[in-house]
Amino acid sequence: MTRAIQVLRTVQQVRQWRRQCLLNKESVGFVPTMGALHAGHCHLVHHSIKDNDRTVVSIFVNPSQFAPHEDLDAYPRTLDRDLAMLDEQFSEKPVDAVFVPKILELYPSGIVLEVEKQKGAFVTVQGFSEQLEGALRPAFFRGVATVVTKLLNVVTPDRVYFGQKDAQQCVVIKNLVKDLLIDTKVEILDTLREPNGLAMLSRNEYLSPETKDECTIIYQGLVAARTLFAKAQDEGMSVTAQAIREAIDKTYQNMPQDWKIDYVAISHPETLDELVTVDKDIGATVSVAVRVPKEDGTVARLIDNVQLK
Amino acid sequence: MTRAIQVLRTVQQVRQWRRQCLLNKESVGFVPTMGALHAGHCHLVHHSIKDNDRTVVSIFVNPSQFAPHEDLDAYPRTLDRDLAMLDEQFSEKPVDAVFVPKILELYPSGIVLEVEKQKGAFVTVQGFSEQLEGALRPAFFRGVATVVTKLLNVVTPDRVYFGQKDAQQCVVIKNLVKDLLIDTKVEILDTLREPNGLAMLSRNEYLSPETKDECTIIYQGLVAARTLFAKAQDEGMSVTAQAIREAIDKTYQNMPQDWKIDYVAISHPETLDELVTVDKDIGATVSVAVRVPKEDGTVARLIDNVQLK
Repeated sequence: MTRAIQVLRTVQQVRQWRRQCLLNKESVGFVPTMGALHAGHCHLVHHSIKDNDRTVVSIFVNPSQFAPHEDLDAYPRTLDRDLAMLDEQFSEKPVDAVFVPKILELYPSGIVLEVEKQKGAFVTVQGFSEQLEGALRPAFFRGVATVVTKLLNVVTPDRVYFGQKDAQQCVVIKNLVKDLLIDTKVEILDTLREPNGLAMLSRNEYLSPETKDECTIIYQGLVAARTLFAKAQDEGMSVTAQAIREAIDKTYQNMPQDWKIDYVAISHPETLDELVTVDKDIGATVSVAVRVPKEDGTVARLIDNVQLK
Repeated sequence: MTRAIQVLRTVQQVRQWRRQCLLNKESVGFVPTMGALHAGHCHLVHHSIKDNDRTVVSIFVNPSQFAPHEDLDAYPRTLDRDLAMLDEQFSEKPVDAVFVPKILELYPSGIVLEVEKQKGAFVTVQGFSEQLEGALRPAFFRGVATVVTKLLNVVTPDRVYFGQKDAQQCVVIKNLVKDLLIDTKVEILDTLREPNGLAMLSRNEYLSPETKDECTIIYQGLVAARTLFAKAQDEGMSVTAQAIREAIDKTYQNMPQDWKIDYVAISHPETLDELVTVDKDIGATVSVAVRVPKEDGTVARLIDNVQLK
């Protein structure tokens, strides 16, 4: 079988490919991923293909967003399966290129995981990276912002696609692109969910079907928040964060005893500041992180969010 | 008189101008400045004009590289004189465009000088920004790296020009461009000097002719270092940093008593690590910072360097 997708390994190859698109006056959409592709990624790719003449997907497990104690080596790497999935899912108008760089292509000075030992250029998005997910993982969004800056500098896409599932990441990247004056349009697409409501993510495959079903409660809590906000909005009213929190808590009372909620946060959708009142016109991002024990004795940390708007 | 130079005020205007160059297949050289132009800047512009089809100069006093106690407002702003100088100096093949953005063009989220209160995207070049000039001014190179990243993202030049006078800045920017995979060539040009050896910089105009003449000793110390290294090289030998330091010290014994040497540093030209031995093949950057009292009771801080190579 002939593969339609061109696999690009080096920065130089991407630049050549991009230059040809430019000369052909073809628009370019870009979907950056860490691989282990699932339907959520394909949702982004689908939109990129629809909106642009050409689409390039990157597959790169970014070391700088992992802390030394996090298991970078254990992150799933499934390149052949990823390429096959892209081939099969998009046969009519295919993905044009996949960028699969080695670490030294994107970190030409090398990279170690200990932040204080790192040398070279890094991008921080101050004020948006320290709360929520950043509170637990202090260098995480620095790693994300740095690699996204590099990738955007190489690919220079007309549009770049991210999923709303990683709500804080979306805010970080929107600010990054705005502040560093990167000439691209950031497209945020709704979270794709499994039939039971569980947000799609690469690590779901590590969950048993039973646990997956139990996880449905995470989204149910967020739906309760959305229902309350929608009702208030219909009445032309704003609503307190406290009331939203209570609606979520009521649902989460039914969570298994051994699950642990890291946070439930009701934040301003643009600044991520914690809200006291959810204004009917501004809305909020309601996000949650939960630790779910797995059969093998380890713990899966699941995050999800809804936009009240 | 008709001015040949197009004055661009907004990011969008620069992008349009740049796009036209691209369509015309014209190469673009870029000279970023903070204005108060002097012969040193013109030296950079001259090379850009020679090497590229089109040249754009930016004039922007970058707030984020000033600390709150440094006098951002007192930095000389002489736009009309700068434009006139560019017009007069380059009449045959002129500068094509000058980018003179307002602060909000380059900092769309705004900018305050207190680092801990800043919000948004910033670029740090870790390992190259903390020593020498960075020791005294902890956020200085973060400000420089951030604004240069923004400017390069807007202008996307084929070549960008900097002066060797700011040796550490050159190292920071070379690493920035390499690590963030910015598609431009960094050209570093030799320091232009006044007839007495004093390195050209915007603030020299604040010095009296007498002080300027006395300042010649700063460069003489560096010349002593270069002479010693050249002699050792001729003999096929490396030389200790200690010996170089002594050669400089001997010259600087004749400095006026009320001058204060901030540092004399003998550093690896690429890593900026302090050297014990100056290898004949690797060489060194010898840099110095001196505080020179002025007639008005304030102090001028002068920096200079030579490359041993």
